[in-house]
Amino acid sequence: MAVLVVGSVALDSVKTPFGEVKDVLGGSAVYFSCAANHYTDVRLVGVVGEDFPKVYLNFLKKMGLDLKGLEVKKGGKTFRWKGYYEYDMGHAHTVDTELNVFRTFKPHIPDEYKDSKYVFLANIDPDLQMEVLDQIKKPRLVVGDTMNYWIENKRESLLKLFKRLDIILLNDSEARQLCEENSLLKAATKILKWGPRTVIIKKGEHGALLWSASGDHFSAPVYPLEEVNDPTGAGDSFAGGFMGFVAYTGDISDENIRRAMIYGSVMASFDVEDFSLDRLQKVKKEDIKRRFRALKKSTHFEEWEEA
Amino acid sequence: MAVLVVGSVALDSVKTPFGEVKDVLGGSAVYFSCAANHYTDVRLVGVVGEDFPKVYLNFLKKMGLDLKGLEVKKGGKTFRWKGYYEYDMGHAHTVDTELNVFRTFKPHIPDEYKDSKYVFLANIDPDLQMEVLDQIKKPRLVVGDTMNYWIENKRESLLKLFKRLDIILLNDSEARQLCEENSLLKAATKILKWGPRTVIIKKGEHGALLWSASGDHFSAPVYPLEEVNDPTGAGDSFAGGFMGFVAYTGDISDENIRRAMIYGSVMASFDVEDFSLDRLQKVKKEDIKRRFRALKKSTHFEEWEEA
Repeated sequence: MAVLVVGSVALDSVKTPFGEVKDVLGGSAVYFSCAANHYTDVRLVGVVGEDFPKVYLNFLKKMGLDLKGLEVKKGGKTFRWKGYYEYDMGHAHTVDTELNVFRTFKPHIPDEYKDSKYVFLANIDPDLQMEVLDQIKKPRLVVGDTMNYWIENKRESLLKLFKRLDIILLNDSEARQLCEENSLLKAATKILKWGPRTVIIKKGEHGALLWSASGDHFSAPVYPLEEVNDPTGAGDSFAGGFMGFVAYTGDISDENIRRAMIYGSVMASFDVEDFSLDRLQKVKKEDIKRRFRALKKSTHFEEWEEA
Repeated sequence: MAVLVVGSVALDSVKTPFGEVKDVLGGSAVYFSCAANHYTDVRLVGVVGEDFPKVYLNFLKKMGLDLKGLEVKKGGKTFRWKGYYEYDMGHAHTVDTELNVFRTFKPHIPDEYKDSKYVFLANIDPDLQMEVLDQIKKPRLVVGDTMNYWIENKRESLLKLFKRLDIILLNDSEARQLCEENSLLKAATKILKWGPRTVIIKKGEHGALLWSASGDHFSAPVYPLEEVNDPTGAGDSFAGGFMGFVAYTGDISDENIRRAMIYGSVMASFDVEDFSLDRLQKVKKEDIKRRFRALKKSTHFEEWEEA
């Protein structure tokens, strides 16, 4: 079944110790879509300006995304993010954010999308995330992402949103900040009380942790890489692999949610190998299968049995 | 079979956001022994001063450790470490190190220990680590730890030592510093070329990674805790659980080495829950089993099978 994503479509300028790119295709909805698209159909809701390069629009079309929800705002300028990473690659340093058309963005869900069952609310204003949900008839799985800016400036809205989410995705520093707890276990326990059935805490190069109200706890490893050239979009690629797989299988059992996290981890591992969508777009089914199996092998152990 | 450890026996003064202790029992050989002792007999080689409190000596004896190798130096003062942890607990800040009797320490292996098959060289001068090995007849498994100080000041000795180690344990920042590589995969590949059959990279609250010359790669998770009160000794407790289990089973297959890492992770999880050996000494067989099984459950997933 198709997955619906609402988020940013951006032009990114990124510098890492291994290269530099200017005004390349990026944004949370784009990374998500490019990852999810390897598993299922994707409906993208977002906005760009008139300056959005044709070549990028064609790229998204050629990928087979459903772009009815992508607004091209007349006279508007596309959202831009400029940032850099230092040698450790663990933290994105923002140099400049130009909201442009994103400043007045009001997500409008096309009628054909209103029956969407699998909804991903990428990191945007929690009030807008709720406006999206108001327009969806009867979603089966709603997953939301957020960031420190909303935690600091829209805490109340965020907590309201939490009541309407099945799964919240956030990174470890955000979870700690939100809950004022150093222990991720304690933070997750707190967040579960606020509404979501499941919390997934992303830890970048250290993998991701899940806690569910069902009592489930899962630790997803990362695929070890020789080269990490640009971490931009890793979290959204994770979300894309995760949601894409869940929507494809239509299975939201604890067991399948675990498996979906592994697909998320696999897609994030491809994303960071190159700038923009350069690696992610080239991924083949066999590549995915190979990394999935490598992750399975890298976490396997058995109990000791006395001879 | 018994395991031999050579390392420090110390009086630690530690401050964390959750408490403060002064001149409590610590040191790499002590943490290691207290963890390994839950699995097998431990032979401890180290040195203390005349000021070493009787109550601590009795504590070590009562634990059942073989202390023939623990020298009490006349007129000497015991090694002391003073440090603190900030809120994130990820990094120990050293305030003061008093080497005292450790400055002139020459590890002397008692004759009864020379047949030791399982040897752990805790973090001391690599030249001394080699002197220990010179005294052991025919070890079956030699595992060594190290630290940034030796990487910076005794690189050549360290690389010489590597040729004589089966397994090197080090933490992620040390691996990166030693190899001048950001990718842990690349760092591990480099270290394997220097001699050890296996590299285990400890990542604190993010678990541990193994790479072996056999091609094996394993990612060990951590047991999530509500309270981390004092991380001191976590790495040595990991090593103790790891080596203790390997020595107990006498099995050095890839499969058992993976399992041993889980026991290492379990022992580290107990250690950090309280100051000094306060939690580690109270661990029961059932506690270990429960955490081992929880870690197994938290990493398990299966491949998707199309219905």
